[in-house]
Amino acid sequence: MGEKIPHWLDKQVELNPNKEALRLPHRRTLTFKELQIKSRAVGAGMKQKGIDKGTTIALLLDNQEEMPVWIHAVSYVGAIAVLLNNRLTAEEIAYQLNDADVSYVFTNDRLIDVASEATSSIPIWNVDDFQPSSRESVSLVEDLDLDEVFTMMYTSGTTGHPKAVMHTYGNHYYSAISSALNLGLQSDDQWLLCLPMFHVGGFSMIMKGVIYGVTVEILEKFHAETVLEAIFNRGITHVSVVTVMLQRLIEQLGNQTYPDHFRCMLLGGGPVPEKVLKQSYERNIPVFQTYGMTETSSQIATLSPEFAFQKLGSAGKALSPASLIVDADQGEVGEILVRGPMVSKGYYNRPVPDQDYFRTGDLGYQDEDGFLYVVDRVKDVIISGGENIYPAEIESVLTSYPGVREAGVTGRKDEQWGEAPVAFLVVDDPTSFRKEDVLRFCEEKLAKYKWPKDIHTITSLPRNASNKILRRKLFEALEEERL
Amino acid sequence: MGEKIPHWLDKQVELNPNKEALRLPHRRTLTFKELQIKSRAVGAGMKQKGIDKGTTIALLLDNQEEMPVWIHAVSYVGAIAVLLNNRLTAEEIAYQLNDADVSYVFTNDRLIDVASEATSSIPIWNVDDFQPSSRESVSLVEDLDLDEVFTMMYTSGTTGHPKAVMHTYGNHYYSAISSALNLGLQSDDQWLLCLPMFHVGGFSMIMKGVIYGVTVEILEKFHAETVLEAIFNRGITHVSVVTVMLQRLIEQLGNQTYPDHFRCMLLGGGPVPEKVLKQSYERNIPVFQTYGMTETSSQIATLSPEFAFQKLGSAGKALSPASLIVDADQGEVGEILVRGPMVSKGYYNRPVPDQDYFRTGDLGYQDEDGFLYVVDRVKDVIISGGENIYPAEIESVLTSYPGVREAGVTGRKDEQWGEAPVAFLVVDDPTSFRKEDVLRFCEEKLAKYKWPKDIHTITSLPRNASNKILRRKLFEALEEERL
Repeated sequence: MGEKIPHWLDKQVELNPNKEALRLPHRRTLTFKELQIKSRAVGAGMKQKGIDKGTTIALLLDNQEEMPVWIHAVSYVGAIAVLLNNRLTAEEIAYQLNDADVSYVFTNDRLIDVASEATSSIPIWNVDDFQPSSRESVSLVEDLDLDEVFTMMYTSGTTGHPKAVMHTYGNHYYSAISSALNLGLQSDDQWLLCLPMFHVGGFSMIMKGVIYGVTVEILEKFHAETVLEAIFNRGITHVSVVTVMLQRLIEQLGNQTYPDHFRCMLLGGGPVPEKVLKQSYERNIPVFQTYGMTETSSQIATLSPEFAFQKLGSAGKALSPASLIVDADQGEVGEILVRGPMVSKGYYNRPVPDQDYFRTGDLGYQDEDGFLYVVDRVKDVIISGGENIYPAEIESVLTSYPGVREAGVTGRKDEQWGEAPVAFLVVDDPTSFRKEDVLRFCEEKLAKYKWPKDIHTITSLPRNASNKILRRKLFEALEEERL
Repeated sequence: MGEKIPHWLDKQVELNPNKEALRLPHRRTLTFKELQIKSRAVGAGMKQKGIDKGTTIALLLDNQEEMPVWIHAVSYVGAIAVLLNNRLTAEEIAYQLNDADVSYVFTNDRLIDVASEATSSIPIWNVDDFQPSSRESVSLVEDLDLDEVFTMMYTSGTTGHPKAVMHTYGNHYYSAISSALNLGLQSDDQWLLCLPMFHVGGFSMIMKGVIYGVTVEILEKFHAETVLEAIFNRGITHVSVVTVMLQRLIEQLGNQTYPDHFRCMLLGGGPVPEKVLKQSYERNIPVFQTYGMTETSSQIATLSPEFAFQKLGSAGKALSPASLIVDADQGEVGEILVRGPMVSKGYYNRPVPDQDYFRTGDLGYQDEDGFLYVVDRVKDVIISGGENIYPAEIESVLTSYPGVREAGVTGRKDEQWGEAPVAFLVVDDPTSFRKEDVLRFCEEKLAKYKWPKDIHTITSLPRNASNKILRRKLFEALEEERL
């Protein structure tokens, strides 16, 4: 049994009952009190249907009002929520339902068909048809035990079967606290949520809202115009995005600058091109580059804007109270290892490794001031003639070439070198694109062993739901396009 | 074993090595890096002298540079620090050294005599003569275990023998976090410490400094002019005081108003007269009234300035993540019970009571909105003819009478009623003071059974180091003055 804290939503209702907790799609809003009433009623309804402490349920939902309500309901019951990616196929869903020992599925009109296809044995409820209960007699959780498992999210897993990352209440709590210790906290903070809530990046904002007692505005999907409108007209102070979203926000903005009340553009999902940082700076957008993953309950390292140029490409330092080391000599590239109370204790139904630090599977190095530079995924490294080649480095050169919008690099078998890099580009104008020019550009910028052996154009790169390039699927994606 | 976090000072050095951690008496300053070097060197020196994990040492110091350095040194060793009140007599010190099983005492030039008088068997070191060690080979604590005991502080105890309140790292950590969730947090926050550091109120600011990564300015003693100078000229944003200090700050201020960068006057030690609140409001002083005690690792409930008048006399609501209830029907007076990860697990060498909530020994009630009003100490209640009389209520009426500066009320035996209230007043001008007028004033304001049976003037009220009136010592103090 771990440290116990009062249920965080009850606590906010005690402190700020009438404060706006959520602004939802279709112009709905919920105060903390209203959110509590709904969540408790759904929780009581769950209990009446046999869902109890320790029961595992799955949520297959969109970014909709029911998502935060059901999340809190689960905590009132003491159940465990599996957050299903709503872009999965029926087969993938079936795998996760089975792997996580799910007893009930909650879904919506749009997704009920895929859910039904995924399972015929597990009961499925449409949240629209679910009867909450207002019975006072149903006893609900009053204290959250920080050591208890609250959620499971499947790693987007670029290879092999996805694994369910278990998050305790404490993981989510400390993640929110570590972010507040880093970014500061003001009572008029307002976060905009435009990432999927089934992912840790979006989910963590639901947690921040209730732990900080601040307003969170939820968008169904990322939409640049709506994001800007929320920032300019509705007092949004914090937004969390990935690079491609930031680029679209900059395009949409034109020559305007961000208002001064806007305090933080939290940027995840890999290093950001210098051009984007410059454009952000010119537009008064304070960009905080981060590093994190499902296993760390969202960001675990952050670079503040004052270092954006001085430490270009860095993800900063591990938040307090987290630790981060690189498994290599000082300044050398090695696997990134992390530790702290926001780091998951392990995967569901897999042996818990006996180790102090979690091995992230990412490669990086720290400079002499301790700033982290993420180099690449361990699994994506191309080994060519005994040299390590990091696809991200080549991609970064490629995207700096005019007209190249996105780039993905992976290895192919090579008789002479073992493996050799091949590039896949999304370009502005395929008709005028000349791959010889790009190869020549690479020859100027990169050591010979890193030169792409071939370049393909492609209309879009395969990405997972976190928007990370699935490099191992680049060849497959090209084949599919050519069919 | 509890949750572990990286040593908080090491973490700040990683994040903000060159930021000012402390501004000290005699215009000295220490960056986080400098504070770390000193603290680690003292810690290494302690280990070389046989102080190790679990060793209990006592600190008998003033508000001086060595206090924070030694506190952090203790955490690097994993030892336990007993914070001794530097106003104690040799006999009182002897009791605490013995009761807490102290192995070593650290003190200074000014206090070494009283320490030597207190013990001849426990080694005493003068911090000025102590040899730190810079040996890298001495291994120091890297992670703090939140469940481990870090400090012990004796309750000022108005009756009986004082007891040592044990604080874990987690108690101090959650206290700092709960305050940040309440007050917010900005990277340019600067706290002024003008309370004794051996007390939880002052000590908690050392903790906040290192957990938040903000600057703390330490004063040897409270001095109104210096406090104002620090606020006006050195960017201080937060000060923690008791009522009498706030009154002096207002007197000293004259007709000026506080600068806008000043964000928080944290006010402890009992309810504040409405006049003082009005004066504060007029002077742009944002007063946060608090309720707390050693056992709660400093404030556990706080009233924000926006409610200062609407909820006059209230200490607000329990901070997140704490719970507070009153052991009585809604709206009725009862004992205040608290719970949360900042609440001490118990007293050293005393049985740990098997209870969810800590019984504070304070009486209070909650209004219909859940705001707490502290009424009085359970032990100070006067029972007169079957009625409960709360001295604080009578004192509040007495101090609202012109010319009455301070008031203390206690019970004396009464043949007819069992007990009856008697008042002790500190007045501006004893020569012109007429107790008949004050009695008549009480008769207008109070029910008959609450009328003081007698009124004495006295030059000063007996108070403990937290500035609370020692009501049981009022008669004794009067006797002493008359000798």
